[in-house]
Amino acid sequence: MACVSDHVLAPADEVQPLDGDPVARVLVAGASGYVGALAARLVWLHPRLELAMATSRGEAGTRLDRIYPRHRVPVTFEELDLDRARECDAALVAYPHGASAEVVAELRRLGLAVVDLSADFRLADRATYERTYGDHRAPELFGEAVYGLTELHRGQIAEAALVANPGCYPTAALLALAPLAEAGLVEDVVIDAKSGVSGAGRQTAERFSFVSLAENFLPYGVEGHRHAPEISQELQGLGVTARMTFVPHLVPIDQGLEASCYVTLEREISSDDLEALYRDRYEAEPFIELAEAPPGVRDVRETNLCRVYASLDRASRRVLAFAVIDNLWKGASGQALQNLNLMLGLPETEGLR
Amino acid sequence: MACVSDHVLAPADEVQPLDGDPVARVLVAGASGYVGALAARLVWLHPRLELAMATSRGEAGTRLDRIYPRHRVPVTFEELDLDRARECDAALVAYPHGASAEVVAELRRLGLAVVDLSADFRLADRATYERTYGDHRAPELFGEAVYGLTELHRGQIAEAALVANPGCYPTAALLALAPLAEAGLVEDVVIDAKSGVSGAGRQTAERFSFVSLAENFLPYGVEGHRHAPEISQELQGLGVTARMTFVPHLVPIDQGLEASCYVTLEREISSDDLEALYRDRYEAEPFIELAEAPPGVRDVRETNLCRVYASLDRASRRVLAFAVIDNLWKGASGQALQNLNLMLGLPETEGLR
Amino acid sequence: MACVSDHVLAPADEVQPLDGDPVARVLVAGASGYVGALAARLVWLHPRLELAMATSRGEAGTRLDRIYPRHRVPVTFEELDLDRARECDAALVAYPHGASAEVVAELRRLGLAVVDLSADFRLADRATYERTYGDHRAPELFGEAVYGLTELHRGQIAEAALVANPGCYPTAALLALAPLAEAGLVEDVVIDAKSGVSGAGRQTAERFSFVSLAENFLPYGVEGHRHAPEISQELQGLGVTARMTFVPHLVPIDQGLEASCYVTLEREISSDDLEALYRDRYEAEPFIELAEAPPGVRDVRETNLCRVYASLDRASRRVLAFAVIDNLWKGASGQALQNLNLMLGLPETEGLR
Amino acid sequence: MACVSDHVLAPADEVQPLDGDPVARVLVAGASGYVGALAARLVWLHPRLELAMATSRGEAGTRLDRIYPRHRVPVTFEELDLDRARECDAALVAYPHGASAEVVAELRRLGLAVVDLSADFRLADRATYERTYGDHRAPELFGEAVYGLTELHRGQIAEAALVANPGCYPTAALLALAPLAEAGLVEDVVIDAKSGVSGAGRQTAERFSFVSLAENFLPYGVEGHRHAPEISQELQGLGVTARMTFVPHLVPIDQGLEASCYVTLEREISSDDLEALYRDRYEAEPFIELAEAPPGVRDVRETNLCRVYASLDRASRRVLAFAVIDNLWKGASGQALQNLNLMLGLPETEGLR
Repeated sequence: MACVSDHVLAPADEVQPLDGDPVARVLVAGASGYVGALAARLVWLHPRLELAMATSRGEAGTRLDRIYPRHRVPVTFEELDLDRARECDAALVAYPHGASAEVVAELRRLGLAVVDLSADFRLADRATYERTYGDHRAPELFGEAVYGLTELHRGQIAEAALVANPGCYPTAALLALAPLAEAGLVEDVVIDAKSGVSGAGRQTAERFSFVSLAENFLPYGVEGHRHAPEISQELQGLGVTARMTFVPHLVPIDQGLEASCYVTLEREISSDDLEALYRDRYEAEPFIELAEAPPGVRDVRETNLCRVYASLDRASRRVLAFAVIDNLWKGASGQALQNLNLMLGLPETEGLR
Repeated sequence: MACVSDHVLAPADEVQPLDGDPVARVLVAGASGYVGALAARLVWLHPRLELAMATSRGEAGTRLDRIYPRHRVPVTFEELDLDRARECDAALVAYPHGASAEVVAELRRLGLAVVDLSADFRLADRATYERTYGDHRAPELFGEAVYGLTELHRGQIAEAALVANPGCYPTAALLALAPLAEAGLVEDVVIDAKSGVSGAGRQTAERFSFVSLAENFLPYGVEGHRHAPEISQELQGLGVTARMTFVPHLVPIDQGLEASCYVTLEREISSDDLEALYRDRYEAEPFIELAEAPPGVRDVRETNLCRVYASLDRASRRVLAFAVIDNLWKGASGQALQNLNLMLGLPETEGLR
Repeated sequence: MACVSDHVLAPADEVQPLDGDPVARVLVAGASGYVGALAARLVWLHPRLELAMATSRGEAGTRLDRIYPRHRVPVTFEELDLDRARECDAALVAYPHGASAEVVAELRRLGLAVVDLSADFRLADRATYERTYGDHRAPELFGEAVYGLTELHRGQIAEAALVANPGCYPTAALLALAPLAEAGLVEDVVIDAKSGVSGAGRQTAERFSFVSLAENFLPYGVEGHRHAPEISQELQGLGVTARMTFVPHLVPIDQGLEASCYVTLEREISSDDLEALYRDRYEAEPFIELAEAPPGVRDVRETNLCRVYASLDRASRRVLAFAVIDNLWKGASGQALQNLNLMLGLPETEGLR
Repeated sequence: MACVSDHVLAPADEVQPLDGDPVARVLVAGASGYVGALAARLVWLHPRLELAMATSRGEAGTRLDRIYPRHRVPVTFEELDLDRARECDAALVAYPHGASAEVVAELRRLGLAVVDLSADFRLADRATYERTYGDHRAPELFGEAVYGLTELHRGQIAEAALVANPGCYPTAALLALAPLAEAGLVEDVVIDAKSGVSGAGRQTAERFSFVSLAENFLPYGVEGHRHAPEISQELQGLGVTARMTFVPHLVPIDQGLEASCYVTLEREISSDDLEALYRDRYEAEPFIELAEAPPGVRDVRETNLCRVYASLDRASRRVLAFAVIDNLWKGASGQALQNLNLMLGLPETEGLR
């Protein structure tokens, strides 16, 4: 345990919530970024997991709560040490795309169950991966991961040793579309998505400075965003060979992501049947809420929930399907914990309420 | 002139910028709302116009710069007085939908040139108007106005006595789409638009409070927004009989509106031809800028400019066309002045730079 | 229990976290405002309390999670019914100032332990109360309440049947100042405080609209804010007869409050002694954190924590003492729960971590 | 003139507002930062000045309107070339502190009138400068500049060849305090100031990222901010030897700065006399507005105005004096132009309305 003893903040030492033996010792690799830090916090607060190690290359020696006071995790970042990693049972890897594959391969070799939060194992087609992200550094594992959109692949995730956690945009878009896709209704879809700024990760580029984004918002990634092949792949997995257009936008908020999906239908559907389709598909899902009106991102801030609303646009004979998530929670670290719970045989919602 | 003498703010009396005789005396009716107040300010600062009267039903007796210090218009709101209105040459009417028609009819009877900023004269089809807004209170004038999207109807506007100033969403969407529509390329279009909060007007409903919108954004008007028939009508005017879907979203900024348009094409077009199409159509337009990348709303804040960007999405064979405006300027009061300049024979850009 | 059965949101019925018998049945009166709704949520999620009733005059019949989806409390507001209130053990009253006293008196008559979140029982001097708030509607109870700044009056609160929960500004200012005040060091103090907009409560006045506050901030209450006498009273209770100036400012964020206190000292103190003074006073406090640098309000958002930093300004021989809280949590509902825990003999931190 | 010919933005070439011969050719050095870019825009739009050159070390070859589309200045940044600088009449230098002195000295040697926007020539005491900023690189000019708070030193500025433009905090604080200081009323003052993020300049440090500042605000510079000696010096110049405490805060807006000044008085003053004092001092000032209530920063956004409000706090026998400015305008580039107008014999307000 990396907890230093000379901490200054008064209540830190009372925070650790473990009671009884933990089910698993968890390593969070790349814990100094937004996604990794939240993953570390979720493990830290989880009643059945122990945060065994939180690693950072750039900030080893610094305490997590120095950088993120609000997470209140009094743990000091370390360099990744594979000898000590060996003593862990599972890992959440929040490395950048490209850099993740190699670390994941090492951790798998040591026998850890791994949820990878990068894109390195999301795509099933090698050529698509390389066109999108460049060379893959652990080709022997390529194609071995289960795609971790929990609501679509729950059974496989529970059996998996390696889960590729989905991108934030694909999570929202696919949850908005899945009931229609599974019912064979999607002929064509336009996905206009909007994300808060934390989705870009912890970085200091000028275009993510406060001054650049105050009173601003804009489309980006118009010439092809890296999440597009991921969405396509999963829609195809649901039997959809539809034409698909995806454009993300940057919105001046911190956390929150919304996907507006405009679906041309394969065949007509009534409003009542549409409502029933979504209700039947999602009523047992612990992290999906069906809203009665178009949802706002604030409704799901700091939660692992996805709020969905679908409506029939009679004039254009399209279905409009909307989903909101917190990009750092259901769009990243929250869903990673949801998946890890399943992999470890724990209740899916544990530590996420 | 409604300027009180006992003003407190030091520099007020030096502000009035008139030099030489004004070309026209202008009445701004409904000048206490966001749109009316900006219209009053633009007239006040206009080198060739005189702000003869600024009316408000609810706030007669109050000074405009008490409510809007930043506009620095030291004029006191009055009740609308038709006897005095008679002495004016032109009027900008910023009344609510439904309430505007009657006032516009009175002012036209007195011989004033009128730009109406409400929706009351935008639609050419009476049934569509009544389905959308209810009874029309000046049916004798219905169909008499020119639709004031300057870049589409400049010639007619210059001849008109009554101009119906477009809605903010139609302005951005139509400017994004016009080159494609005029070229007969639009088979189907999805318009996903996002607006800052001032687009809702000056009102106090809880959903527009700061707390409701901080760290939030959301779709709305999903079951049919009133600007949809307006967009359809103008697209039809350009020869487009396409299927059209329009969904607005509310974004937590003050001023700014963006329209993302997803166009299925009637026939293929190359990137170069697409670029040429927009360049040829817009290069002479004083208020349209062709951007080199997807534009942000901040780029046009507090200006009458519309910034446009179009791109070919090869994968889906769609054109993605984006436009940003300031919803209070090009989306309302700025365009109203642009139209009034034309109606009065003044240079179109006067008082708008 | 006011939970309706026909709820639409999928996971609502699994949310109720009660296990084992609750310690107390709690009524939240005035639960449709920001403070009352958060109080209801905190009771709802509290492992040892039962939310027996959530009342609202204006919105009886509406579900709390319809108005505040993010709170996820599937309870329907009711009119206050004193017959049923009788079955409760305790009440949190979040009525407006002036209106609260009467209800509090009724509930006390029925034997409930009460935490009043209004100002009605905060002041000990009747003349000061009436000058500040007008007539008092339960004069028989005036002076009977314990002032609920937990860190100052913990012992009395544990014995109290009626606690007057402090205002948000006094909470932050007094926690910043208490160590100095208790040490007899305060000769004179200027308190410049800044609050997010939710501090104004749930209301629709134009000055709290999004458009009024975007890109804005301003001082207010300059001619005398109602929290000033409350701060003075408590400082006097700590033996301080200092001159005190207090000015609040409105800042364009949702939740968060900061107090910057400029203290002229009765006698000199070294930096080391200043640090020791704060450490000794606060190191055992579960909800106070001593920061190593001036704290930001984001550090305590959605927590019951107060983060404090004190520094010696050699040039002016002043102590600069800063405190940040979430105005809705430690500044209102969170502290109310902290107090209720004490009154009911529960651990002070229960349900607040 | 640095205007490239192959610009993409349609209306650029019509923008240049010169008519008649310009009075002076102006160089803006360091024009790629926020302050320099706004200075370039103000010169560009000024009816009597010509923007002869806009220099940038890091971004030579890039067009200003590529980085700041909203400024609409179609000029390409160049490296500073002293041979060509020789052909200019005046310069605005927006270099960082420390780096500016040397360039200013060169430009003065070439005979240009210079307004320096850095701190390099603001302080009269060499030891104070070096303690605050380090070595001075043009000691021969130290003490030669006039301090450019226009309202305090108008006469000297009109005669000066080198003006040291004030810092943003000193501008607001001194304008709030000057009438009291000049009347010999200030015994002691606490200045609690708050600034929008653009005051930190164009930089990419993580603490100025959108995510770090969303829903946040905080004090900083508590151990001694560099603007404190500047404020002290000018107060002393007004005869004030008072104790002074100054603490800045960062607020999540783009542009805007407010100073709340808490003044202990040398002798009593009535409310009426206080009002008269400010009115008499400021009623002829073109850029100062006396407000009737505490002003918001939004009231002066994108203007060169300073809005002031003073009030008597009877309880503490203090005067509360508030001033708001736009930190980039009156707090930097706007005031620089105001000073340059004076130095060139132009009307002070030209190009600033």
